Amino acid sequence: MGRFITIEGPDGAGKDSVLERILPELRKHLSAELVVTREPGGDPIAEQIRHLILDPANTAMDERTEALLYAASRRQHLQAVIEPALKRGAIVLCDRFVDSSIVYQGAGRGIGEQAVADINAFATAGRVPDLTVYFDVPAAVGLARIQAHRKNQQFDRLDQEADAFHERVHAAYIRLAQANPQRIVTVDATPALADVSAAALAVFKDRLSEYWTED
Amino acid sequence: MGRFITIEGPDGAGKDSVLERILPELRKHLSAELVVTREPGGDPIAEQIRHLILDPANTAMDERTEALLYAASRRQHLQAVIEPALKRGAIVLCDRFVDSSIVYQGAGRGIGEQAVADINAFATAGRVPDLTVYFDVPAAVGLARIQAHRKNQQFDRLDQEADAFHERVHAAYIRLAQANPQRIVTVDATPALADVSAAALAVFKDRLSEYWTED
Repeated sequence: MGRFITIEGPDGAGKDSVLERILPELRKHLSAELVVTREPGGDPIAEQIRHLILDPANTAMDERTEALLYAASRRQHLQAVIEPALKRGAIVLCDRFVDSSIVYQGAGRGIGEQAVADINAFATAGRVPDLTVYFDVPAAVGLARIQAHRKNQQFDRLDQEADAFHERVHAAYIRLAQANPQRIVTVDATPALADVSAAALAVFKDRLSEYWTED
Repeated sequence: MGRFITIEGPDGAGKDSVLERILPELRKHLSAELVVTREPGGDPIAEQIRHLILDPANTAMDERTEALLYAASRRQHLQAVIEPALKRGAIVLCDRFVDSSIVYQGAGRGIGEQAVADINAFATAGRVPDLTVYFDVPAAVGLARIQAHRKNQQFDRLDQEADAFHERVHAAYIRLAQANPQRIVTVDATPALADVSAAALAVFKDRLSEYWTED
């Protein structure tokens, strides 16, 4: 059985940029197969579900409907992509997982963190990440980064949210990290990209030491 | 606030034929607006979700994915169709609801009745039918009726199930009826259509007496 690692963080934390920087290092140093994925992860059924959620035409979608659809897409991705990879001994790096639903749907949209955790426990049937690397950045910093970055791009439905929403998301991430100190390692994502990347790489090296090879 | 009534029963119980017979009587005698619906109930989002579930191409769909999608479709139908109707004082007659998921996904597919009840409690957020009319028929009788009826029709994915599946569904319905004697009224659906219809009509007349007008 391999290792299941998730990457989390509020919008604008810079997860994608950090991953882009450190993936070559992980590929170079890890002795096991590395599978990098994010929902829906290329599974045709999960893709169809995700399409429903993100379609800007579906503005009449109820918040609980949305949370259930995220859980359904997650379940399908887990069974079709993640579990088979873990079974063959791979290290799976998944960009966002249950924690994202707890903070975005549970806290952000106000459905309730425990209720969203419960339907996701059904979806994951006991599969919990071995490690979660959480990129922490204050809501205001994250939002400023997004605005600078996306100036000329189209926003999808989930981007059309208020500042208070992002504050709730950030506060919920902090609560999750405090409640799960063994699983969740917090990386301060406020500094420059090079520094955040170095800090993240150090976490991976530490927590995957049995797979780590020099040169 | 109106009244929320669900109709349940295993395949081949004859729900549809009975409803067809008694609806003119209900329309004639009930003093309130009558809304007859079934999931996805014409809501565009619920329709899209339902299409995913029933598409024969989606054979790789995980059982828990399917259960979450049913709950999502139900949530959307509830919010878009049922709750507004109840709010304006209507009597809502819904063909299948949470009980169907508990018996088909929970017991039939073996995911667990309580687990499926829990995700549906999230979907319904406390809305429980005021009355459920359960048409009871042994699995073997129901299946024989389906086979006679559908000889020349195309089967969808859910029809391609074994006898044991239908036995589990029937047993779970019996358990639900026993556990919820106030909510669930059982109508023996083994006799001839005219007799079953008369028995069902008597249940409605009794339980909707404050809405019932003669002539």
